[in-house]
Amino acid sequence: MEQVTLLLTASTDVTMDEDRRLLSPGAVAVRGNEIVAVGPEAEITQAYQADETIRCDESLIIPGLINTHVHMPMSLLRGLADDLRLDVWLYGYILPVEKRFVNPEFCYLGTLLAAAEQIRSGVTCFADMYYFEEDVAWAAVQAGMRAICGETLMKFPSPDADSYDDSLAYCREFLEHFRDHELIVAAPAPHSVYMTTPELLAEVVRMAGEFDVPVVTHVSETKLEVTEWLKAYNMPPVVWMEEQGILEAKVIAAHCVHVDEREIGILAKRGVGVAHNPTSNLKLASGIAPVAQMLAAGVNVGIGTDGCASNNNLDMFEEIHLSALLPKVQMKNPVAVPASEAMTMATIMGAKALHMDHLIGSIEPGKRADLTVVEMNNAHMVPRFDTTGQNVYSQLVYAARSNDVAHVIINGKVVLRDRQLLTIDEDAVLEEARQLGQRINRFFVQRETNLLDKLIAIGGLKQQETFEIQVKGHVPSVETVEEGLKSPDIRIVRQTVRDQYDTYFIFDEASLGRIRYREDAVTTEGDTESPIYSLTLTEPAKEAEYEDCVVLTRARYTAPANRSLRFYREYFQASSEKEVVKHRRRWRIRYKGMNFAINVDKVTRPEQESFFAEIKSRTWSKEDALRKASLLSELLKIIGASTDDLILHEYVDLV
Amino acid sequence: MEQVTLLLTASTDVTMDEDRRLLSPGAVAVRGNEIVAVGPEAEITQAYQADETIRCDESLIIPGLINTHVHMPMSLLRGLADDLRLDVWLYGYILPVEKRFVNPEFCYLGTLLAAAEQIRSGVTCFADMYYFEEDVAWAAVQAGMRAICGETLMKFPSPDADSYDDSLAYCREFLEHFRDHELIVAAPAPHSVYMTTPELLAEVVRMAGEFDVPVVTHVSETKLEVTEWLKAYNMPPVVWMEEQGILEAKVIAAHCVHVDEREIGILAKRGVGVAHNPTSNLKLASGIAPVAQMLAAGVNVGIGTDGCASNNNLDMFEEIHLSALLPKVQMKNPVAVPASEAMTMATIMGAKALHMDHLIGSIEPGKRADLTVVEMNNAHMVPRFDTTGQNVYSQLVYAARSNDVAHVIINGKVVLRDRQLLTIDEDAVLEEARQLGQRINRFFVQRETNLLDKLIAIGGLKQQETFEIQVKGHVPSVETVEEGLKSPDIRIVRQTVRDQYDTYFIFDEASLGRIRYREDAVTTEGDTESPIYSLTLTEPAKEAEYEDCVVLTRARYTAPANRSLRFYREYFQASSEKEVVKHRRRWRIRYKGMNFAINVDKVTRPEQESFFAEIKSRTWSKEDALRKASLLSELLKIIGASTDDLILHEYVDLV
Repeated sequence: MEQVTLLLTASTDVTMDEDRRLLSPGAVAVRGNEIVAVGPEAEITQAYQADETIRCDESLIIPGLINTHVHMPMSLLRGLADDLRLDVWLYGYILPVEKRFVNPEFCYLGTLLAAAEQIRSGVTCFADMYYFEEDVAWAAVQAGMRAICGETLMKFPSPDADSYDDSLAYCREFLEHFRDHELIVAAPAPHSVYMTTPELLAEVVRMAGEFDVPVVTHVSETKLEVTEWLKAYNMPPVVWMEEQGILEAKVIAAHCVHVDEREIGILAKRGVGVAHNPTSNLKLASGIAPVAQMLAAGVNVGIGTDGCASNNNLDMFEEIHLSALLPKVQMKNPVAVPASEAMTMATIMGAKALHMDHLIGSIEPGKRADLTVVEMNNAHMVPRFDTTGQNVYSQLVYAARSNDVAHVIINGKVVLRDRQLLTIDEDAVLEEARQLGQRINRFFVQRETNLLDKLIAIGGLKQQETFEIQVKGHVPSVETVEEGLKSPDIRIVRQTVRDQYDTYFIFDEASLGRIRYREDAVTTEGDTESPIYSLTLTEPAKEAEYEDCVVLTRARYTAPANRSLRFYREYFQASSEKEVVKHRRRWRIRYKGMNFAINVDKVTRPEQESFFAEIKSRTWSKEDALRKASLLSELLKIIGASTDDLILHEYVDLV
Repeated sequence: MEQVTLLLTASTDVTMDEDRRLLSPGAVAVRGNEIVAVGPEAEITQAYQADETIRCDESLIIPGLINTHVHMPMSLLRGLADDLRLDVWLYGYILPVEKRFVNPEFCYLGTLLAAAEQIRSGVTCFADMYYFEEDVAWAAVQAGMRAICGETLMKFPSPDADSYDDSLAYCREFLEHFRDHELIVAAPAPHSVYMTTPELLAEVVRMAGEFDVPVVTHVSETKLEVTEWLKAYNMPPVVWMEEQGILEAKVIAAHCVHVDEREIGILAKRGVGVAHNPTSNLKLASGIAPVAQMLAAGVNVGIGTDGCASNNNLDMFEEIHLSALLPKVQMKNPVAVPASEAMTMATIMGAKALHMDHLIGSIEPGKRADLTVVEMNNAHMVPRFDTTGQNVYSQLVYAARSNDVAHVIINGKVVLRDRQLLTIDEDAVLEEARQLGQRINRFFVQRETNLLDKLIAIGGLKQQETFEIQVKGHVPSVETVEEGLKSPDIRIVRQTVRDQYDTYFIFDEASLGRIRYREDAVTTEGDTESPIYSLTLTEPAKEAEYEDCVVLTRARYTAPANRSLRFYREYFQASSEKEVVKHRRRWRIRYKGMNFAINVDKVTRPEQESFFAEIKSRTWSKEDALRKASLLSELLKIIGASTDDLILHEYVDLV
């Protein structure tokens, strides 16, 4: 008899191998982290002798379930805010709490909490995307789980990086730390095409190629993002991604709710793994992904729970259930995505979607020993039939629940035995999570009704670029500037004349930021347009003064203002107000391949003698901001501004 | 201190009363079967002293969940056959197994199995519809559950009745037995408008009024049934039901997937309770019911699991979850049916839908003590927040699972304590269910590939009337009959001339029935139509000979035959074949308010000398069949047929 480390016997092995073999009764032999044999129970128990045997009567052994999309640490935000419109939910709850609470400890604790829940629902491998991903990875290692850990990259500042340049640096270091790790694949995770920039995406693809790791991202989750992409690029996101070369990487694309036939063809051809998140897509009203169509086209579609902020649990059995149910009503066809296909998505096809099917996803000799044991002796699983050859999948997909999972083995190691977690001190994790929950709760209960909340309530909020460079200088006249702009280095993109009437709401508590109500009466090349009314919240800035300019780093939010100034005055209840009125001539220009705005302003309230020339630019990238800043003194010279008494602040701060 | 029988304390009482009060920490005092007090824990524990106290730390007390639509005994068919087209599923599996296995013992056992599962998922009251409903009721009493038990009434023969007349008699007796029962409301349950007849429905409404009980039925589950109703009556089912006076009863309408705005208005106005069954509607690809619209119109919408054959578990938490999720994607609105509204549907509004809100559905003094305790200390329920006032509903609807239910009290009695069932010997029930499951399984494995299966595989199968009366007599000529038909008592509805070419496939194993392949070449009032090709399976009949006729009771199924006789010959592989060819003149007539067909046949193969006159009628009702049979000798006389040598069999049996 050959010696192995672990032997499992059960009513049925559901192998999910190419022939979808069912072995009843069946057994699995494991040596170290590897499956060495799968077969009829009698055969295996005769051939192998094990250090440890787990007898699983009235149970099924299935491949460990694969959660192809999750934000593990968000388990700590479970039930914080639900049934809200997207802007209220995101700007009112999720972003403020992430800004305030998300740190390495949060991510470690949240991952352990999520791992406890995941293991209990039979998951052995997950693909994550969050911040401080190195801490997510270490918590996964502690829990004994296999994972793709995707470090989030965005153009916005995030809890773990002030700019995407910082994120990229963090990410590279993270990928180096986890190169060739037994359980963890560290990966870059650009949030989505619309939350990143083409430059950032290109850098990500280079990095993923260099380390031979996948790229985790969100694709076409909402109708809106697709519509906006079509408007901006005249092509849908997946087509754009292919054109940009992003699909050269091993991409794992979460959602793909709004993809058309052509895009589905590209996903199949490029071997993109799709993570389908049915509960999240329902809960946020995103839509129902075309799963049946993607499967028919040969796309590898796995199943994901998404994060707790949009689910609110991480129950893979619920997701598998929905993955079989939703296509039926969507296709008006009761045989669409039968149970066996949903189980395929949760196991071997999920492994393919993660580009890991050489290691996991089925019970086969040579693969890693990631196994889940599902009991069949609870009331909701009785009786059982074998009438169609499909009954066992039916039982797993339509009747089973997470709580039927009795044992879980990952990489040959038992991590759940008789529903007891062996790698996580669950009581301690739950207690810490409860306490953190209470702290977060107090934060929301105690916080002043803040300006952002009030702006959110008005609706239509958008976040603007984070980095801002600006400088002002005195100019003798408009003509001086016009003359300067004739320089061959400068290309004028657009010019306008504007009368801008700004009212600033100022608050004693400076950390609140301030609100600007602007009436912007624009004349473009002679044609006067209707005035544009807007509200802008600027939070206090971090300033860095450079030779001739200031680089500001701050959060800015704008929203359309469709009510009267009187209304906003009463609504925001500021400590004081300031007025700034100016006549502005504006040129949008390109200079050395970069975009700038040149304004020549005559400020009439409070009345200022001279003309000011202002050079401004905004960007999502700190490096980009510094590159632009370095060009400012050249530009000032070109437009004939005096560099003796430069003004580095805004008009309202001069008053 | 006042003495009570039971006192519960918990982190929060979720009362679901009119003010949706949340009491944290809260307590509930129960005396006998009634709630006597609900309030803050300190207040209640000071005022009441209890025989028994259950402390539920880190738990919620909620009103017992109400499952507004289920077929309890079908728990025994869980996973028998899934992911099949409706006709294959119904005619290939469900009907054969019901015909063979459904008896009082089956219904009692299946109800206990379903009750075990239901109680474990926090359900305290259900509305059932099945056969042998008296046994369902007694099993519910055994389990200590509250229930509306609906005895199924259909025009088809059912496992507990050969005809609907028998069903009605059974139903009346059942209603009498359970008049004023503490836990059970016995009710008539006409399956649906399309599976019953207007006469049957009228009788049901009378009976429900007499006993003051609700009427349980299915309404507009599929698009097809609505389309067919529109074709037949030029109005949708709910409008037709109102016109027929059916909505005068306290109706509980399951499904209502395909109801239009006008119908929703009628459901609201008439106080019809709707049972929404999200999983079943997805799984059978029926559609998504317009829940948000029904709620907006003021319809009382409860939640149901439907039976195990279309679900496959009876997990109310899953159904509540989907009741909140599906409307969001359906309405493209993430705030549609928020968690609190889904909980309302599962409790107080469910009680209203069952016309029982005076007794159950909320935790209020004076109501019955039906209570469910949900634990909040499992990984998937941590942490908890109180940021929006809605978090507790969020936790219950989006995160909780059946297995979080720790205790259940029904009618003041503890039926589940610490997840132990106190009223059901669960091990014994599961073991019996397993054994029965094995018997059913053997039946399917062993049964010969039968004719019905083969007919199903061809598609388009329909079941025909069960009762058939027929008689044949010799007539001297067609003219004799034509003369007779001039009688003032007879109204000719339609007349045709037909050449019928029948091939019968006969099987040695007589119990299989036989298949007729017919080419029916019809000429109506001079116009020749294209021939109609059909296949008819007739199963062996029970015959009852009356004075001048035979009443046959048998299953008949027809399907269009769109392939060649050669194909069917090879396909059915009969033991032998018989041919019958005849030239037929047919009159459809009304006589004394009843429909009959009169055929005058010249049989040319095998050649017969004389003309035969045949009188035939089919019906769903046995009483109707007997009434018609009593008119046959009169009719024979009128058409001049000899009553000396009547022939009571079919031509094929004469050969």
